[in-house]
This record gives sequence, C-alpha cells and structure tokens, in this order.
Amino acid sequence: MSDQRMAAVRDWMADEDLDALLVSSRPNVRYLTGFTGEGLLVLDEGALICTDRRYTVQAGEEAPGIECGTGKSHLECATGRLRKGGHARVGFEAPHLTCESHATLAEGLEGVELVPCGDQIKRLRAVKDEEELSLVQRAAGIADAAFVQWREWLEPGVTEREAALELERLMVVGGAERASFEVIVAGGPNGAKPHARPGSREIVRDELVVVDWGAVFEGYCSDCTRTVVVGELDEKQREVWEAVREAQLAGIEALRPGLEGREVDAVARELLRERGYGEEFGHGVGHGVGLEVHELPGLGSSSEDELRPGNVVTVEPGVYIEGWGGVRLEELMAVTEDGGRRLTRAPYDL
Amino acid sequence: MSDQRMAAVRDWMADEDLDALLVSSRPNVRYLTGFTGEGLLVLDEGALICTDRRYTVQAGEEAPGIECGTGKSHLECATGRLRKGGHARVGFEAPHLTCESHATLAEGLEGVELVPCGDQIKRLRAVKDEEELSLVQRAAGIADAAFVQWREWLEPGVTEREAALELERLMVVGGAERASFEVIVAGGPNGAKPHARPGSREIVRDELVVVDWGAVFEGYCSDCTRTVVVGELDEKQREVWEAVREAQLAGIEALRPGLEGREVDAVARELLRERGYGEEFGHGVGHGVGLEVHELPGLGSSSEDELRPGNVVTVEPGVYIEGWGGVRLEELMAVTEDGGRRLTRAPYDL
Repeated sequence: MSDQRMAAVRDWMADEDLDALLVSSRPNVRYLTGFTGEGLLVLDEGALICTDRRYTVQAGEEAPGIECGTGKSHLECATGRLRKGGHARVGFEAPHLTCESHATLAEGLEGVELVPCGDQIKRLRAVKDEEELSLVQRAAGIADAAFVQWREWLEPGVTEREAALELERLMVVGGAERASFEVIVAGGPNGAKPHARPGSREIVRDELVVVDWGAVFEGYCSDCTRTVVVGELDEKQREVWEAVREAQLAGIEALRPGLEGREVDAVARELLRERGYGEEFGHGVGHGVGLEVHELPGLGSSSEDELRPGNVVTVEPGVYIEGWGGVRLEELMAVTEDGGRRLTRAPYDL
Repeated sequence: MSDQRMAAVRDWMADEDLDALLVSSRPNVRYLTGFTGEGLLVLDEGALICTDRRYTVQAGEEAPGIECGTGKSHLECATGRLRKGGHARVGFEAPHLTCESHATLAEGLEGVELVPCGDQIKRLRAVKDEEELSLVQRAAGIADAAFVQWREWLEPGVTEREAALELERLMVVGGAERASFEVIVAGGPNGAKPHARPGSREIVRDELVVVDWGAVFEGYCSDCTRTVVVGELDEKQREVWEAVREAQLAGIEALRPGLEGREVDAVARELLRERGYGEEFGHGVGHGVGLEVHELPGLGSSSEDELRPGNVVTVEPGVYIEGWGGVRLEELMAVTEDGGRRLTRAPYDL
C-alpha cells in the first residue's frame, strides 16, 4: 500500500521538477512509511526516516523497508542527507515547516533551491483506499458501541470530566488505541461553546448535553456528536434539536461527488436560517477525517474542495445560544460514487 | 499576574525595537492572556486575541480584559489589525509560525519589516512564579496519589492500554483536568522504547514495567516515571534498576542554579557509564515542564541552558536494552536558590 502512495508522491515530485522532498508533517510521514514516531522523511532517489534513539527500534518495526538515520537533531540528519545528494531543487512542506526550521535548512543547503510546496500529500490522503475506509469504519464501530453503553451509565451528578473519561475508557476497552481527540461532554450553558472542554460541572436533569467523541483504530480516527438529555426536553430544547437534525439530514442527503464543500455547508445553513437559527450556526458544516481528525476536504462556507469518492467527511451542523446552551449532531460519512454512506451509527434517542 | 508577564514581553519588544508582535504559540498565548482556545495574539499598543466563533464565548470568560476579534481566518484577523497599525517593524515567533503562514502575513503586510524572533516568551515561561509552582505541585500531588492507588490495582493479565487508561482515570477522578501526555505503560521488551505507546500486550509477572505519567492542573503539567515489577526482580533487572536509581539520585543532587543543563546530564551519564550502561542511555537526562510537558530549560547532553531558581525540570535517566526491556526513573524537581526540591513523591517500592 505504502508503495502506491510513495509512487503517487514521486509522480508529483517529477511534475514539479523536485530532486528531493522533505516531509515534516507527522501524519504525512506515517501515511507514506508507517512510522508513527517523531521524525522527518527525506525522499530522494531513496528514502530516509530521520529520527532519534527514542524511536529507532520502533522505526525498524514499523517501516522495515526504509532506511533510518539519527543526528544531532532530526533536521540536521535530514540536512546532511540532502547536502550529500547534490540536488538542485529540494521541496519542503510550507504548511508544516516552521520559519525557524526553514532558516536552518537554508543555511545547511547553501546553493540549493528550496521550493515551498503546499499540502500535496494531505490532498492525496483525502481520498481513502479500501483498507483505510475499513479502518475508519472499525474506529466508528468501536465509538458507536461505547456510546450505547455510556448512555446507559450516564446520570445526573457525574461531572462532565468523569463522563468524558468514562466514554474514552469504554472506547479503549472496546478496542480503540485511544480517543481521536479529547472527548467533549458539555452540559447546559457549556453547550454554547462548540469546543468546550469537559469541566467540573455536573450533569443536570432535563439539560441538554452535547457529546462529541471518536476512537482511533490503527491510526485512523472517527468523529461523531450527539446531543442528549437525562430527563425530558422542554419545547425550546426540542425545537432547536429538531432544527439541527433536519439541517444535518439535509446535509447528509446532499453529499455526492463533484459538489464543493461549501455547497454542502449551504444546504444545512439554509435550513437553519429558515428555522431562524442562521446566526447561531458559527462554524462550517464539516471536515475530512482520517489519520487526523481534521483533514481534507473542508466543508466550510467558503470551501472549494471538490468531493470525491473515498472522502470521509463529517456533517455536523449546530446551534449555539450563549447562556442557554447548544445542540450539535454529527455523522461521519464516506463519500461514494453516487452519494454518501454512514460510518457512524450511534442512536439518536433522546 | 498576566500584567507582569505582558510587561516583561513589552520590555523585550522595546529592546528589539518592535512596534508589534504576533504570538502564534498556543501556550504562549495562554501564558500572556489566560485564553486556552485556538487563536493568535497581536501585541501592539494594545492586545487582540484573533480567534473564531467556536471560541469567542470562552475568550470573553478567560481573558476578560483583552479585546477579541474574528475574521475569515485567525491569521487574516491578525493581519488586518497589524495593517491598520501602520507599523514599521512587526515581530513573529519563528519557531511557531509555518512558512505558509509567514508568506500570507508578508503578502498582507507589504512594506512592513517582519522580524523573525526566537522563543523569548518560552524563555520567560521557564522561570515559574509562586502561583505556577503551586499549580505544578498540585498536578504532581494528584499524579502521585493516583499512582499509589494504581499500583495496588495493577496485576498480571491487564493490557498496557487498560493499565494506562486506569492510571489516567484515577488522575481525573483525583482532580486532574487530564493526563499531561499519553500515559506510557511499557512491559517487558516494550520498555526498550523510551516513548512506547501502550498496546495490547499484557502485564506479565516478574517483568519490568516502565510507567511514565503526569497530570494537568489548571493548565500546568507534572511528569514522573517509575519502573515497577509485579512479582520479583531477577539479578539483572535489579542491577539495571539500581544503576538507574543511582544515576537519578546523582542528577538530583547535582541540581543548582548557575549550572548548565548539560552539566546535570553529564553527572547522571557518567554514573551510568561507570556501571557499564553508558551506551544504553539514549536521551537527555531531563527537560523543563510547565504549561507544556516539554519546555525550557533543556537538560540534554548539549544544552547550554543555565538553571535558574523557579525552573521546573525532570531528572530521568534510563537504560534501554533492545529485546530485554528498560528502566527509567524520573523525578520532577523545582530548582531553588540552593539546590532542588522534589515535586513528585510517588514511592519507589518495587
């Protein structure tokens, strides 16, 4: 698999007339080599993982066919290799290299043209192969099952933080490597913060609770949100919840290859606007998911990323009302030849 | 408190003849403002947190005295503010700004001199004030207490991953915001990887288990390592364990203001060399800890960082033998006027 991926990168390097490429994004290094530790990847006529002694055993296990080197720093190891190559043009990942590292690289490679490259490897990663899709599906299945157990466990009086950790624990016991991000459990007014961190506030009966969670399985992430209540919904809560659910279903229904991300966003956004909540939906409707929990394509209101079969994206409209709380509902979807396929299947029961 | 910190940064900006500074490191933004969300900080005659609607409620709560803005992106918001300022020289954090963001900034600020700055704010952060020291101490106390409970719970047959999560759970129940990094539980041969990720391997009787864990309390991290056994040590295990413990005690004893990081490293390294394990100690003896679990000063073999009272550092020699396993013992220490003070107090019982 990694051979195909390497080949795609080398084709692109040839198109760009690059003699070598420094890969500094950690998920990109993993995608191309399987190595999950800290380090850099040099692609020239061969390939070299530049790491340190904390990770050399691991690199040997995870990327058995690829040479591994160490140096005073990862960057010095990479610079040494690149200098020896006598290259004319060396590409680097502009979104994933700091100005400081760039200065160090430039100093070590005097006379070499350093070519700023965009996120080509991340763009390759946006289209998942069958193996990747099945890993995301496994992650989603673990997360779904954990949620069902957690929902039975949840009761008023536990803190958001305890509740978040219990959901994480259930995922790990269920086979997850870890949570794909810090689980969000946001009760009552905390639900008005889309990225609330679970705190010492207790779950209160009849309050909305936003739950946003995901699992990692062999490096691949899932991402899902439900908004639940322990007790009963009042009229306003139900009205908002149902508006968000309608917007989400409209977004899911809209998914198909060829659409731009912003077009999916617009469908959900328009529905919330009609229901009177256009102003309260302050983020994009979704994003790609894979080795990272936020990746391409973007499904924000200005995203021109075109959907393609093999994309894995979230559809997650929300309504956030300061002082009152929030509702967000998120599904993880695979884009297929003719629409979308649900990867998360956690129940929507209230 | 944040006023004093801001004043220190503004003094430095004046020395460097900077009209404004773009702060892009998230812990640096937090250190100066209290804001814990995603965003950038512009310091000019005033201060502006540039974020997005996911975080505006939170920014208002966490950084009440500081202006908060949004834009098409955090960087566009910051660029807009800086452009209006009509500044001659604008500093940026070269270790914390990507080449891509720099290019965007340069495009938006034509005619402005962009000045690459080092990690001045991180250097300020290396010396903790009393409040910070007490937060680190709280984090360490929570982690210690969790470890004692965990040690009683641990038994052969649980997987590394379950064991790591249980230790995290105990920290959270004990009052931690979260673990300060992914807890490491590495049994048997896995102990040979200093940054092993806990996997599906079970804890086996009479095998060494490296446990590296820490808590976060109000943003501040602790960091501690013990190597334990469920059962009995054999002669080789005991010999390695004791060599590491001696090296650690020597490093702890050596701590005092004025020393360079590498000098502390050398003390522990020399002791392991005498015991015949010089080659098996493949990382630096320690690092600073604070809002991040790895910060300044460095205590690696080439670190010229000078220790100062108020530093919080780890002392953590280790011996790693491929195929056999490893031993690491780590204490978190505050550097005082005349030496060091232990912050972690987890027992060393085997």
